[in-house]
Amino acid sequence: MTDNDRAVILVSGGMDSATAVYEAMDRGYEPYFFHTSYGQETETKERECAEALAGDVDAADFCHVETRHLAAIGASSLTDAEMDVADADLDSEEIPTSYVPFRNANLLAMATSYAEATDCSAVFIGAHSEDFSGYPDCRPEFFDAFQQVMRVGTKPETEIELVAPFVEWSKTDIAERGLELDVPYDITWSCYREEAPACGTCDACAFRLQAFQRAGVEDPIDYDERPDYLEG
Amino acid sequence: MTDNDRAVILVSGGMDSATAVYEAMDRGYEPYFFHTSYGQETETKERECAEALAGDVDAADFCHVETRHLAAIGASSLTDAEMDVADADLDSEEIPTSYVPFRNANLLAMATSYAEATDCSAVFIGAHSEDFSGYPDCRPEFFDAFQQVMRVGTKPETEIELVAPFVEWSKTDIAERGLELDVPYDITWSCYREEAPACGTCDACAFRLQAFQRAGVEDPIDYDERPDYLEG
Repeated sequence: MTDNDRAVILVSGGMDSATAVYEAMDRGYEPYFFHTSYGQETETKERECAEALAGDVDAADFCHVETRHLAAIGASSLTDAEMDVADADLDSEEIPTSYVPFRNANLLAMATSYAEATDCSAVFIGAHSEDFSGYPDCRPEFFDAFQQVMRVGTKPETEIELVAPFVEWSKTDIAERGLELDVPYDITWSCYREEAPACGTCDACAFRLQAFQRAGVEDPIDYDERPDYLEG
Repeated sequence: MTDNDRAVILVSGGMDSATAVYEAMDRGYEPYFFHTSYGQETETKERECAEALAGDVDAADFCHVETRHLAAIGASSLTDAEMDVADADLDSEEIPTSYVPFRNANLLAMATSYAEATDCSAVFIGAHSEDFSGYPDCRPEFFDAFQQVMRVGTKPETEIELVAPFVEWSKTDIAERGLELDVPYDITWSCYREEAPACGTCDACAFRLQAFQRAGVEDPIDYDERPDYLEG
């Protein structure tokens, strides 16, 4: 870490990115929030949560980007109203239908532009090891490769570190770390399917409920249905 | 090249990307046009030219993406109305004020999402060696690094080659190759400053006029002013 202690954090409003905010602050960074509406079906709720988190930590800046190109390009159940969001299958090795082609490269490219324009020295992303069972752009190799692009594609005097603090962690590890850091999980949102209450049955709800169960704490948000994923 | 002979081409509507279209077709690819309005001051004119080119080659598809985030993030004279576009200084080693932070990473990330969604096997970009005198994200190292991100950040079965055919060329080489390929330069647009006629004095006009002069051919578009850059 340099003297410049400002960091852009990709904040979707979910539990992983909320924890990334508190992790960055715990490491001494001043948080610059970067939030996108990319046409995901739950974008209003996600934005409300990201803004509530920004208020909670008194963020230095909140950059909200409406970027319709991922929805225009399509091919994901998260952005294509014609495709149904599937029920969770936590043991599947298939790429889920919720995969948005190359989404994290798009988000990190935007976040890096923002970081370069605001003179931030780091970009934090809350991706974790259980994401990359399904999404190729959540793997450590992907972040290593993207760090190299950031190194050679920005101005010579720009040095921005890409930090994915949870990349080797499980979602349960994140929940445990977040509870330690007092992350206000009641104002976070993970469900892929509904605006409120969370459905409890999509991939995102399933992984979240399982993580809280394994951390031995009750998830503070409301669910339409609360299956027991420890038995699954 | 594989059996899959579809290629996404980043088409701004300028002479470099127009030449990239004809180069890709000369290599046997069916062209999928990818054009963005990112808030650049001459976007209407650029889009008209890109659409005219798509008509000229009977493009398989035309993906137009309106993406306001680069303008929202700012810090470039191309997208920030408060900053003036500077007159050309072809010998300067400074990063020009027209630099949009990390622009090509943003554009290539979008183009890769589009290529993956449409099952294209290549992405062409018309960047060349005189660009990277000023822009860090036009250098060969940048494209090599981005190719690696494309390799690890897309689905395992996806193979997309990043092709920057002119990366070691001068703009004069491009003009010469384009004249050989009969690129209709009369329907292309390069000026950073005006909608029509081209100013003749910004960086983009200066490099274009110089390239045509060196290729020994008159640039077929109209200019407000036509300085002699061979003497400069």
